[in-house]
Amino acid sequence: MSMIRSWVDSANDPEGDFPLNNLALGVFDPGDGPRCGVAIGDRIVDAAALEANGLLDLGPRLCDRPCWNALMAAGPKAWDAFRARMTALLREGAPEQARVAPHLHPMGSATLHLPFTVAEFTDFYAGRHHATNVGTMFRGAENALPANWLHIPIGYNGRASSVVVSGTPVRRPWGQVKAPDDSAPRFAPSARFDFELELGAIVGQPSTGPVSVAQAQDMIFGYVLLNDWSARDIQAWEYQPLGPFQSKATATTISPWIVMRAALDPFRAAPPDREVPLLPHLSDAGRDFHDITLAVTLTPEHGTPETIARTNTRELYYSPAQQLAHHTTSGCPMRVGDLIGSGTISGPTPDSRGSMLELSWGGQTPIDLNGAPRAFLENGDTVTLSGAAIGEGYRIGFGPCGGTILPARQNPYAP
Amino acid sequence: MSMIRSWVDSANDPEGDFPLNNLALGVFDPGDGPRCGVAIGDRIVDAAALEANGLLDLGPRLCDRPCWNALMAAGPKAWDAFRARMTALLREGAPEQARVAPHLHPMGSATLHLPFTVAEFTDFYAGRHHATNVGTMFRGAENALPANWLHIPIGYNGRASSVVVSGTPVRRPWGQVKAPDDSAPRFAPSARFDFELELGAIVGQPSTGPVSVAQAQDMIFGYVLLNDWSARDIQAWEYQPLGPFQSKATATTISPWIVMRAALDPFRAAPPDREVPLLPHLSDAGRDFHDITLAVTLTPEHGTPETIARTNTRELYYSPAQQLAHHTTSGCPMRVGDLIGSGTISGPTPDSRGSMLELSWGGQTPIDLNGAPRAFLENGDTVTLSGAAIGEGYRIGFGPCGGTILPARQNPYAP
Repeated sequence: MSMIRSWVDSANDPEGDFPLNNLALGVFDPGDGPRCGVAIGDRIVDAAALEANGLLDLGPRLCDRPCWNALMAAGPKAWDAFRARMTALLREGAPEQARVAPHLHPMGSATLHLPFTVAEFTDFYAGRHHATNVGTMFRGAENALPANWLHIPIGYNGRASSVVVSGTPVRRPWGQVKAPDDSAPRFAPSARFDFELELGAIVGQPSTGPVSVAQAQDMIFGYVLLNDWSARDIQAWEYQPLGPFQSKATATTISPWIVMRAALDPFRAAPPDREVPLLPHLSDAGRDFHDITLAVTLTPEHGTPETIARTNTRELYYSPAQQLAHHTTSGCPMRVGDLIGSGTISGPTPDSRGSMLELSWGGQTPIDLNGAPRAFLENGDTVTLSGAAIGEGYRIGFGPCGGTILPARQNPYAP
Repeated sequence: MSMIRSWVDSANDPEGDFPLNNLALGVFDPGDGPRCGVAIGDRIVDAAALEANGLLDLGPRLCDRPCWNALMAAGPKAWDAFRARMTALLREGAPEQARVAPHLHPMGSATLHLPFTVAEFTDFYAGRHHATNVGTMFRGAENALPANWLHIPIGYNGRASSVVVSGTPVRRPWGQVKAPDDSAPRFAPSARFDFELELGAIVGQPSTGPVSVAQAQDMIFGYVLLNDWSARDIQAWEYQPLGPFQSKATATTISPWIVMRAALDPFRAAPPDREVPLLPHLSDAGRDFHDITLAVTLTPEHGTPETIARTNTRELYYSPAQQLAHHTTSGCPMRVGDLIGSGTISGPTPDSRGSMLELSWGGQTPIDLNGAPRAFLENGDTVTLSGAAIGEGYRIGFGPCGGTILPARQNPYAP
C-alpha cells in the first residue's frame, strides 16, 4: 500500500495525519450548524454539501446531521461505498474536482464537535503492562495480574454522558477520598488526577446475542484516540467491591476524527503470544491487532510541551474485537455508537507508560517535566494524545486528542 | 391523605395498584402504535388521544410518542400541571367524563412497552442488609461491610441496552466461570442465575455539575420496580478488580408503570440511624426515603406461585437522592431518562432477603419451594416483583414486574 495522491495538495504531505488513504470522519461547523465532514490534508470536505449537490449518494441522506451514526447504521456495504466514492472524488485527476473544491473548509479554524453520538461507553483493561504495573503497585509483584486477567478481557461500564471531544477543558473533580492512614474520609478536590492513553473502538452494527470474535471484528466501524481521565485518590477509596465509578466519570476525551477500520487494514498485526490458551469463544481469529504508534505530550500552563510517553497499540493483549465479543457473551445487546475503550496502553519500558500513575510509579518516582519533578496532573496542564499508523510515505493519524485541566470548583457544598 | 375517587369504578378498589392518587405512567399499544398511557384502575387512558382532542394541553404535545421522556424534560412545573389536569379529568363528577371515556382501554389485554427511553443505567448497593449478607458470605462476618460502605453509596454503571419491560423472557446466559477449586475456567451456561429486588429511580432533569441531596431529590421524576438479574458464578470470576460486568448485562427488568414522585409524597419516611455521620455533601436533607412494601413471588414452570420474600424500601441506607447526589460529585453529567437502581433491598430476617443468593445463603441452605429445595433460578421459573405504598383505604402500586427464565442457547461457539 502506498499513498493515494489527492488534488488537495496538503493531503500529499507524507507527515500529515490525513492523506486520501485515511478519510477520517468528524463533525464540524462552518458557521451555519454542525454537520458531517471528512478530513483531507489540512481541509475538511463538507459531506453534507456533497450529498445536497448529488456528488455523494448513499441512498438516504446520511451526512446532514451532527453525527456519523447514520452512516454506521447503514452497514458495511455503505461504509465501503462511502470510501470508494470519496476516494474517487478527491483523488488526483478527479473530474469532479471543480465541483468539490467549493466545499473544502480550512481545518485549522473549524470548530469540531463529537464525531458521533455515544450510545454507551465501556472501558476495558486490556493492556498487559498497564495491568501488571498497577497490580504490582497495589498488590505486589507476585500478585500483579488478577487471576482472571489472562482468560477474559476485564472491563467495566463507563459513563457515555461524560465523553467530550478533544479541546474541551476538564475541571479537576471533587470526591470522597481517604488515604490508608487517615482516620476518616474527607471530601476534597482530587490530588492525584491522571490521564490514561487508550484506543477507542466504535461499534457500527448492533447485536442481540453472543457474537464471535470474527463477527465482532466486522461490527467495528472505526477507531478514535481516547483519554480516560482518572482521579486515582477517589478511585482507591471507592473501587471495592464494585469497581471504578466517580473516579472515571468527570470526563473522557476522544479525538475529533474517527479513523475508519478500512483505513487501518494495511496496518493489521498478529496477536501477542498467549501464555495460557484462550477459550474458544475468545480465540484469536486473525490479525485483529493494529500497529499504531502512540505518544503523550504534557504541556504545563507556563511551560513547553514534552513528550512523556511513546508506545504502540500492539501492546494490547486483547484486540478490540475480542473485547467486543466478550461484551456480548451474556447476551448483552450492543448498539450503533457504543464506544469501547481499550484500557491504558503501556509498553514494557519506563518511558512507554500510558498514565502518570505508572510514569511516576504511584507518585514515588516523579518524572522530570520542564526541569521540575512531576507526579500527577496540575491545573493548567494540557495533555495531548497522538497516534498514527506509519505507512510507506504516508501515515494514518487521528489528529490531536487534548484537554487542559481547569482548577476545581469552589466547594459546592460549603456551608 | 385518602383515596381520590374516580368515575372509573375500578380505580376505587382499595386493593388496586392504580387509584386516581397514583396516575402511573406507561407506554401501551392499542393497535395502531405505542404511545403514552396513564393507569387508572384496570384501564389505561390514552394520553396522546387526550392531547389530540385538546383535553390535555401541556404546551407542545408530549404524549404522542412511545416514551415519557418528553414530559420528564418539560420539568417539574409540567409534571405538576400534568397531574393536576389528569386528576381533574378523571375524578368523580368530572364534566369531561363523556369525552374522556372513549379513550379508556382495558389494561389486561394491552401490550405494554418500556415506559421511557433509558439514557444510562446505574446500579447502587445501598441496602445494608444485602451488603452485609453478601459481604459475610464472601469475606466473613467481621469484614462484611467494605470500609467505604458507611461513607458513600457504592455503585457501578450498568448497561442501559439490557433494560427490558416486565413480561420479557430472560434467557439464561453463558459466561466464563471458574469455581475456586477448578484448575481452569470454562465457558458454560450460568448455574447460579439469580434475581435482585430493587427500586429504580428515574432522573427527570439533567445536571452538569455536582448537585446537593436536596437538588437531587427535585431531579427525580419517578420510580419503577427493578429486577437486576445476576449470574453469580460469572460475577464471582469476573468482578475483581473492576466490578460486575457480563454477570449483570443479560437483562434488567423494570415494571411497566412509572410511579411519579408526587404520588409517593404521602409515604415519605425518615432516614435510618447513621452509625457514622455522613459528610456534608451526602447529609440527610429530609424525609427522602419511602415506605413501600415489596414482595417477590417465584413460580416454577409447572408449579404454583409462592411469595419467597417480603421487605420494604425503608431498608435502604442511602436514599435515591443521596445516590444521585453522589453520582454527580465528580461533575458527571446526568441526563433525562437516566435510571438508578437502588441495589438489592433485603430486610433483617431470613424471609426478607431480596435475592436467591441470600435466601439460600450462597446455595448452602436452599429454601423450600413447592415442597422441593431450591437454591437458584431454574429454567421456566417466573420471578415477579411487586410493591405498593399502603395508604388509608388505598394503595399506590407499580403493577407486576416479572420475567420467565428461558433455557440457555445452544453453545454459540461450538465447533
